[in-house]
Amino acid sequence: MARSVQITRVYHFSAAHQLASAKLSSADNAALYGACHRPHGHNYYLEVTVAGMPDAHTGMAVDLEALDRHVQRTVLDQVDHATLEDAPALAGVITTGESLARAFWRTLAPGLPTGRLLRITVVETAKNRFEYRGEA
Amino acid sequence: MARSVQITRVYHFSAAHQLASAKLSSADNAALYGACHRPHGHNYYLEVTVAGMPDAHTGMAVDLEALDRHVQRTVLDQVDHATLEDAPALAGVITTGESLARAFWRTLAPGLPTGRLLRITVVETAKNRFEYRGEA
Amino acid sequence: MARSVQITRVYHFSAAHQLASAKLSSADNAALYGACHRPHGHNYYLEVTVAGMPDAHTGMAVDLEALDRHVQRTVLDQVDHATLEDAPALAGVITTGESLARAFWRTLAPGLPTGRLLRITVVETAKNRFEYRGEA
Amino acid sequence: MARSVQITRVYHFSAAHQLASAKLSSADNAALYGACHRPHGHNYYLEVTVAGMPDAHTGMAVDLEALDRHVQRTVLDQVDHATLEDAPALAGVITTGESLARAFWRTLAPGLPTGRLLRITVVETAKNRFEYRGEA
Amino acid sequence: MARSVQITRVYHFSAAHQLASAKLSSADNAALYGACHRPHGHNYYLEVTVAGMPDAHTGMAVDLEALDRHVQRTVLDQVDHATLEDAPALAGVITTGESLARAFWRTLAPGLPTGRLLRITVVETAKNRFEYRGEA
Amino acid sequence: MARSVQITRVYHFSAAHQLASAKLSSADNAALYGACHRPHGHNYYLEVTVAGMPDAHTGMAVDLEALDRHVQRTVLDQVDHATLEDAPALAGVITTGESLARAFWRTLAPGLPTGRLLRITVVETAKNRFEYRGEA
Repeated sequence: MARSVQITRVYHFSAAHQLASAKLSSADNAALYGACHRPHGHNYYLEVTVAGMPDAHTGMAVDLEALDRHVQRTVLDQVDHATLEDAPALAGVITTGESLARAFWRTLAPGLPTGRLLRITVVETAKNRFEYRGEA
Repeated sequence: MARSVQITRVYHFSAAHQLASAKLSSADNAALYGACHRPHGHNYYLEVTVAGMPDAHTGMAVDLEALDRHVQRTVLDQVDHATLEDAPALAGVITTGESLARAFWRTLAPGLPTGRLLRITVVETAKNRFEYRGEA
Repeated sequence: MARSVQITRVYHFSAAHQLASAKLSSADNAALYGACHRPHGHNYYLEVTVAGMPDAHTGMAVDLEALDRHVQRTVLDQVDHATLEDAPALAGVITTGESLARAFWRTLAPGLPTGRLLRITVVETAKNRFEYRGEA
Repeated sequence: MARSVQITRVYHFSAAHQLASAKLSSADNAALYGACHRPHGHNYYLEVTVAGMPDAHTGMAVDLEALDRHVQRTVLDQVDHATLEDAPALAGVITTGESLARAFWRTLAPGLPTGRLLRITVVETAKNRFEYRGEA
Repeated sequence: MARSVQITRVYHFSAAHQLASAKLSSADNAALYGACHRPHGHNYYLEVTVAGMPDAHTGMAVDLEALDRHVQRTVLDQVDHATLEDAPALAGVITTGESLARAFWRTLAPGLPTGRLLRITVVETAKNRFEYRGEA
Repeated sequence: MARSVQITRVYHFSAAHQLASAKLSSADNAALYGACHRPHGHNYYLEVTVAGMPDAHTGMAVDLEALDRHVQRTVLDQVDHATLEDAPALAGVITTGESLARAFWRTLAPGLPTGRLLRITVVETAKNRFEYRGEA
């Protein structure tokens, strides 16, 4: 039996961020997060992986334009050329890569217009990648 | 118990292609596929992932030269510096990334000379990757 | 004395092409251009390098939005998701990388809305780059 | 129920190596390993993937500094700017990519200070990647 | 006669920034800089190119460790995991890529411990590079 | 007047090497070269830039196949999957990146079958590039 195909679409945004816990003092935040407690920023790549069966008539498994619009509207419009801590979709989220991956899943999964969401990958730098595969 | 190792080998080919369904008019194809209905092309990367147990005497799990020859003969010789729609291995295939990944699996799996085929990845552009993990 | 700054902006297009001289037979074209005489395609990168002096008030040396619009209108609209041989800007051009670089210079230089054109780079594959620095 | 997040950290080392089996003659080694039997070297990337649940208070799932120290001490200190065959952690290992991936797993798994080890990837060149997901 | 060799060393830093002129109102800044007037950030690459003659005895043209220390102390310590507008080396600089390249030249040139400074390149994103070749 | 076009062709080789001066003791070599005095290796990229005028009939400025054969025969055959210190073309050369760039120029310039040699670039790692532009 044929299995579905996985499509990974790569998006980009440039954002400022700052790791800080509202429950900690500034000194404790600096001790916990080190240099990441200072405001800084990244060229993030957001990779969205969805699964679908190629349609026999069109050869396409997902509607990439619909996916692009969904990601643009629910995520990129809030985080590109912005401060992550100001994005409504990230309210209450400490913006570590691992928490971003989970938050973006929770933002993108509801109302996903095409395919089945398999994996969210946040590429923070060339040395750090964070993947989330959703609720069990 | 030791598990097998996964080896991913990356191949490259430059090809022209054009998304079109034989069942649709030219106008309907243009509406469905947008700019991709026009002839264009890509530098494709084909990633072939196979699994095998490292041999205790040689340290090798697969015979990469045999794999290279198989991929060259069954896929690259047909698609490199070619039009995808002309490749016999892709007869009847609408050459979306998702359908290419599945078609390359079906071409490469029979007669694979080494290892166990795990995954075919087609990298169409820096923004689009397509993976197929085979028949269930 | 301060010198100008060089800004390189990277654009992308996916195109089909085919090397062929109108003056040669099909056999002679195949002998001359080898595999490149067959229709195939690439993910091209077009790098446009312009020079300008940073403005003391804005810190900007060129108007990147104006540059983007100029490149989009005069080049990308003709070559992205297209066959290079069909582009009006490339009429009569054999679409080798070296000839593309020179043709894009000649297309982009007139009416350049910002900065001074220094260099056009065409990246055909990860192994081939072609640069043109203009008429003397 | 929330699932864990996978964090991939990318490390780099430059090393010399030479494929050779102690049980074979020099001629047989040359026949088996080809050019790889000659001393040569690579810029290796070692990707370590660990899983963890983001902490509700810190947003962090693993302690990346502790992971860095563990990888540095048990692997990188032995293999960076070194000959792989001289590394104590690789004693008796024929240094193919597949055997390196398994050997690094066996070196890193014991005493891992943070997270749960999911995958070791050895990137030998832009064309070859080797993954090991551990003992069953 | 032998010429000197050019050595390019690539450094990385992650920083927040925001384009704004102190002489403009917030509305005028937004009109002038668009999305770049909002706080955001990048993974910057700073490429420092110096020239030197390889020493006949050591084969080395520059002292890369001395260069690293100079760049670390005068630039990276101020801009990595920081807000560019807060860096003393960038006081009064509107942090466009072109102005950063010139400002880093002016910071690095005095006291350069090795080689002759030829070029500063600031890579802001995969689409934008800025080069400065110094005072005439 | 039209200027020539610059073509950059990228070659790859994997090699072992070790920085050492024959005039120094082992301890002095270790002090001078640090970790680079130990045998290690790299995935090197050799970029060869040549200039030529596009031919009006063929659109080609250089014969890339002839260039490939020349580079293969005079350089790659000696250094790929080899130890740099053993290559005849590098006899007496301390194999720093800067000295390699100059040595490869001196090897490639005589008998160059096509174009005019403009620049040799040796990419040692993602952090280090070395360029030589030849004898004055």
